[in-house]
Amino acid sequence: MEGEVTAEILCIGDELLIGQTVNTNAAWIGSQLSLIGIRPVRVRTIGDDRAVILDALRTSLADAVLITGGLGPTKDDITKEALCAFFDTRLVRHADIEARIVEFFHTLGRDALEVNRAQADLPEQCTVIHNLRGTASGMWFERDGRVFVSMPGVPYEMTAMMEREVLPKLRETLCPPTIVHRTMLTTGLGESHLAQRIEAWEDSLPAEGIKLAYLPSPGIVKLRLSRYADADATSARARVDRKATELYELIPELIYGEGELRLDEVVGRLLKQRAQTLSLAESCTGGFLAHRITSVPGSSAYFIGGVVSYANAVKMAELGIPEDMLELEGAVSRPVVERMATGVREALRSDWAIATSGVAGPDGGTPERPVGTVWLAVAGPDGVRSARSVFPGTRTQIIERASLAALDMLRRRLLAG
Amino acid sequence: MEGEVTAEILCIGDELLIGQTVNTNAAWIGSQLSLIGIRPVRVRTIGDDRAVILDALRTSLADAVLITGGLGPTKDDITKEALCAFFDTRLVRHADIEARIVEFFHTLGRDALEVNRAQADLPEQCTVIHNLRGTASGMWFERDGRVFVSMPGVPYEMTAMMEREVLPKLRETLCPPTIVHRTMLTTGLGESHLAQRIEAWEDSLPAEGIKLAYLPSPGIVKLRLSRYADADATSARARVDRKATELYELIPELIYGEGELRLDEVVGRLLKQRAQTLSLAESCTGGFLAHRITSVPGSSAYFIGGVVSYANAVKMAELGIPEDMLELEGAVSRPVVERMATGVREALRSDWAIATSGVAGPDGGTPERPVGTVWLAVAGPDGVRSARSVFPGTRTQIIERASLAALDMLRRRLLAG
Repeated sequence: MEGEVTAEILCIGDELLIGQTVNTNAAWIGSQLSLIGIRPVRVRTIGDDRAVILDALRTSLADAVLITGGLGPTKDDITKEALCAFFDTRLVRHADIEARIVEFFHTLGRDALEVNRAQADLPEQCTVIHNLRGTASGMWFERDGRVFVSMPGVPYEMTAMMEREVLPKLRETLCPPTIVHRTMLTTGLGESHLAQRIEAWEDSLPAEGIKLAYLPSPGIVKLRLSRYADADATSARARVDRKATELYELIPELIYGEGELRLDEVVGRLLKQRAQTLSLAESCTGGFLAHRITSVPGSSAYFIGGVVSYANAVKMAELGIPEDMLELEGAVSRPVVERMATGVREALRSDWAIATSGVAGPDGGTPERPVGTVWLAVAGPDGVRSARSVFPGTRTQIIERASLAALDMLRRRLLAG
Repeated sequence: MEGEVTAEILCIGDELLIGQTVNTNAAWIGSQLSLIGIRPVRVRTIGDDRAVILDALRTSLADAVLITGGLGPTKDDITKEALCAFFDTRLVRHADIEARIVEFFHTLGRDALEVNRAQADLPEQCTVIHNLRGTASGMWFERDGRVFVSMPGVPYEMTAMMEREVLPKLRETLCPPTIVHRTMLTTGLGESHLAQRIEAWEDSLPAEGIKLAYLPSPGIVKLRLSRYADADATSARARVDRKATELYELIPELIYGEGELRLDEVVGRLLKQRAQTLSLAESCTGGFLAHRITSVPGSSAYFIGGVVSYANAVKMAELGIPEDMLELEGAVSRPVVERMATGVREALRSDWAIATSGVAGPDGGTPERPVGTVWLAVAGPDGVRSARSVFPGTRTQIIERASLAALDMLRRRLLAG
């Protein structure tokens, strides 16, 4: 594409090559670049070797080269030296950075050693990018209209640097075409069925210059609308917004939010707004649903607690399920899951309760109840309702999908109420 | 190193570049190659673009090039064409593979379309690697003593192919130096303290030709011993085994297993051996501990269930904690966590019970109980014991570390009993 701005990501670290660390940095950087209209064209991962790094810099392509790793205090980390060789410059001690490092260790109650202070030795020629979360500074270089950025490999430090300085500066320096985005988050329908349902709407997008991407993950399909814009993005924004509104009208019950929002956060917000509380009775999801809900900071405002009723004895003792019901219907059945939901709601005195009971596998399936069969129930002020699904995938995927489906069931009840 | 065998990993897929998918394949392949003595020297990720793939093949280095992705049935997937161009061959329909594909769809109750059958079109010149988990075959090429292997990008399909055919064939074809490994799994001590404790032992390794690698992850440090061996690995194996035995004698309580074993599996095996059962009372870990335990297939043999007692009302009603104890001592205290453990053990009638209560953050910390403070208790046939720790990291990391520490506490009690 004309006017296109491209990027290459260069990750340095032996631990990435031998698979000790999964390279999540490359994926995160790639997604952030895409969002500001810069196209990632290659990722390379190489070891902590001066000659190899230098060769990678020399053979780099793209308008921006984003480099992570190799900036630690140990002698293995030799990215800075390679950068000096490539840019024909030398390391100089930056007094202000050294002072920051000393202060950083001071707040941890420790003294900075010379090996730590040496992290203030940075190439004379670069623009320093401050690291507010660690001691390894980032470096920004420009040459022949191209940009090279070196950042630490620690994700928590790198992401902060990217968001605060690197992404805005890349946009300013390389002027990528402005892209207007909206990402609608859907659950409850698989990719192909969703595509069928919105086919006519999707066919109307090209005429508006809008591209649609399906981004599926277990239980969730993200729909990303994007459109290139002129310097003034108002018109592009209006077109994308109009199509987003149409989508809301088309599949109102399937969209649970936009952007990076998680379904557990959405449910948490809805409960908070209503000053209502939630409890859980989990069988096949085995605590995963509670974990998802409590992984949201502040969830104690609406989450009371739950029972993981793995054994039938627990279903009887803690949730009041009659023994003959378990024998007659089986644990994976509508009557049992509904009694689990109403039982925990009463026992823990919450406004809402979710219950799960199913066969997560790999064993335990029968012809009538194959692996993946899950009964879900939601009990609330207006009674209890339940549904049966068969989820595909591994044990872990079945647990995840069942948990998402249960949260979505509660979400719909909250919105309907 | 002389006689060294190197590998490059080439991952193909736009979804990897834009960060929609994290590249876990590269890490997994890298770790498997390392284990058989092949050194990964570079990973490259590129888009589904014929010219780019061809260029990557031409500029590849290393003795083995492992390629993933781009083998799907859609027209975006053009890896096969690029391979044909590179190896100067053409696609031919393999009748036996086509029959397998038809059969594969048949078991799913569907008919294979022509687009599916076309996955049996494979380069005339290659050796086909069978895919037992999907419809995209792998391809093995040799040229000038180098090996090129193309595999599907779906991890579940690729890993099966690697384990069954590719790794054995790589070893046979490239004859990498034999490496003898043992990986000891430790928990309970951070990397630097562990290093101090085993310093003298570590210093004795070079004389035996043994290398030691520290592989840390939150709450766990893996210690990998490795040694190159001659054609007959007996002597190297004996040396590594002797040093491993010394390590067991040095830090018996810190080693929970070897290889890829998970701590929750170890605890599960110990419980199974003893025909004993476990229940949980989780506050700060919020269901994560139950999730870890129930993610092990067959855990229903020893895991009865648990209570996630987020609100104090649940601690009182379900676990019998007196209200004045909660008021006087606070929920994050020794008396409360011990009562949680004994309470759930009695209520659910299990042999063992674990309880957790702490401040997972990011809010809720005080000077006496900063974020990360966690009380853990284990109740068993011989009484209840508890301990206080302060775990570093984010909310998620605190929850993970506390869960591992709790499992380890139970493991030690089981071994001591």
